[in-house]
Amino acid sequence: MSEFHFADRLLAAIANMKTPLIVGLDPVYEQIPEDIRGHKSLNDGDDAESAADAMLEFCTRVLKVVAPHVAAVKINSAFFEMYHSSGIEAYDALVQEAAAHGLLVIGDVKRGDIGNTSERYALGNLSDPAFVGMEESVGPDAITVAPYMGSDSVEPFIKVAADEGKGVFVLVRTSNPGSAEIQEQKLADGTPLYMHVAKLVEKWGAASVGKAGYSAVGAVVGATHPEQLAELRAAMPKTLFLVPGLGAQGATARDIARAFKPDGTGAIINSSRGIIFAFKDAKYKGDGGWEKAVERAVIATKKEIAEALGG
Amino acid sequence: MSEFHFADRLLAAIANMKTPLIVGLDPVYEQIPEDIRGHKSLNDGDDAESAADAMLEFCTRVLKVVAPHVAAVKINSAFFEMYHSSGIEAYDALVQEAAAHGLLVIGDVKRGDIGNTSERYALGNLSDPAFVGMEESVGPDAITVAPYMGSDSVEPFIKVAADEGKGVFVLVRTSNPGSAEIQEQKLADGTPLYMHVAKLVEKWGAASVGKAGYSAVGAVVGATHPEQLAELRAAMPKTLFLVPGLGAQGATARDIARAFKPDGTGAIINSSRGIIFAFKDAKYKGDGGWEKAVERAVIATKKEIAEALGG
Repeated sequence: MSEFHFADRLLAAIANMKTPLIVGLDPVYEQIPEDIRGHKSLNDGDDAESAADAMLEFCTRVLKVVAPHVAAVKINSAFFEMYHSSGIEAYDALVQEAAAHGLLVIGDVKRGDIGNTSERYALGNLSDPAFVGMEESVGPDAITVAPYMGSDSVEPFIKVAADEGKGVFVLVRTSNPGSAEIQEQKLADGTPLYMHVAKLVEKWGAASVGKAGYSAVGAVVGATHPEQLAELRAAMPKTLFLVPGLGAQGATARDIARAFKPDGTGAIINSSRGIIFAFKDAKYKGDGGWEKAVERAVIATKKEIAEALGG
Repeated sequence: MSEFHFADRLLAAIANMKTPLIVGLDPVYEQIPEDIRGHKSLNDGDDAESAADAMLEFCTRVLKVVAPHVAAVKINSAFFEMYHSSGIEAYDALVQEAAAHGLLVIGDVKRGDIGNTSERYALGNLSDPAFVGMEESVGPDAITVAPYMGSDSVEPFIKVAADEGKGVFVLVRTSNPGSAEIQEQKLADGTPLYMHVAKLVEKWGAASVGKAGYSAVGAVVGATHPEQLAELRAAMPKTLFLVPGLGAQGATARDIARAFKPDGTGAIINSSRGIIFAFKDAKYKGDGGWEKAVERAVIATKKEIAEALGG
């Protein structure tokens, strides 16, 4: 059982790649390279199927570039739902493609509802599809989940994850500026709401701790709040952090060092736009086309993180 | 402009149907009538396309029964996402079908993410699809949105809604038992978190108040907390409530009376399983097949609500 434990699998993959960096796939049709948009029958994104195909091709080529360098990718469903059923087909195909490269996949879906409904979301968004014609398909290895509706809305995700050796990452302290309005609200005892949610998450994971000491219930903690990262790291010893916010959202590699324990474990660091759109960045432009720029960005970001972690 | 305002349209439709009842479409393949499952090529739900087709047929037939009686339906995307792209096709087709019956449609998707991502969710889940081959398609008239990530995560939904004369309903106090763990947390000044979120929602709606005095930014407030319904009704004078929890979740028609102002406006009441699966309920079983049971349930529930509201 524990050889299939999500946290153990993720930690082994991180150790193998020698980096906690993961790459976020948030493709926006209008921003993908001309050479991909150009050879589609329609090139202004006004055909859902063509646009979804172009995004799939772009992301598939990004996967080929980043697969030798990172343990996992995070695919954000919003960018695919834009294109209705064509987008969902592309999303599903991309999950297969990433898995075929040996990458772990986090489906960034931020779902949550009452119990019977969360169960449906968990089956659709996390489990391996068990339908005729999809038998060989896999679902993501983990998904993100929203906490506002409480334990009984999160439990079905944890249960489906446990049944399939997968994981969930619950939103605790998100990277966007407006999140403070809710998450930093001080409770009667002086603790901020995010700390209350953090304790719930640590509790939800208690029954699923793997060999490496981390549970299958992780937490999303934004890199844009470095002091809170440190505080949450201390409060959640058995919880792996998924840390967004590096790059486009303004956090630096130094900021994220606090997400880790002294032994260097405890977090994965996501960069999306800073890597997949590196070909628009003067720092990474140069010889070899857009894929070379993406490669330079992933290598440079790994190095930056390694230096910040003193490695 | 205001003749297209979401709240005004919804209030006019409620007045026309003489009921605030709306019907929730949460179809579960295993529970739909045998006569629909039976004439599919596969009848155990193990083929995503057949299962999605069967659910679409079931929901389409439910729509025909309920359309003469209610102003709107709420379609929960979780039950469709189960079936991947086939499910999304069925969901989209059902939105068109409901609109063709003149019903307003609420897409119960509970989305929320950082700003640029919420914008994608809003475009995909709320706007009318503007793609080749989908030009005649409409998106839902409103969707549900999760508040945990704060203003900048909700604003893109409000903006897309405003651009298209549509609405959003933000989760404030949900109907499930576990929601108390987060939503009833007392803040330093003694107010519960849900009241803090309620005030944010009222503020988010301030710029979009229609002729009837309600904004395009509604709130989800569960019928299972009647005292809180009254308190929130007082605190959010410009906010329409979407009230789930009647029936299967245990709330009664009496409980929901407090969601309304003295003039009888202010809320829509959702019943899902209590109506669409009425053919399993001894109270509604009888002559005329399953559709007749659904009709009896919708009529009886309307009457119950009218009596509770003193109408």
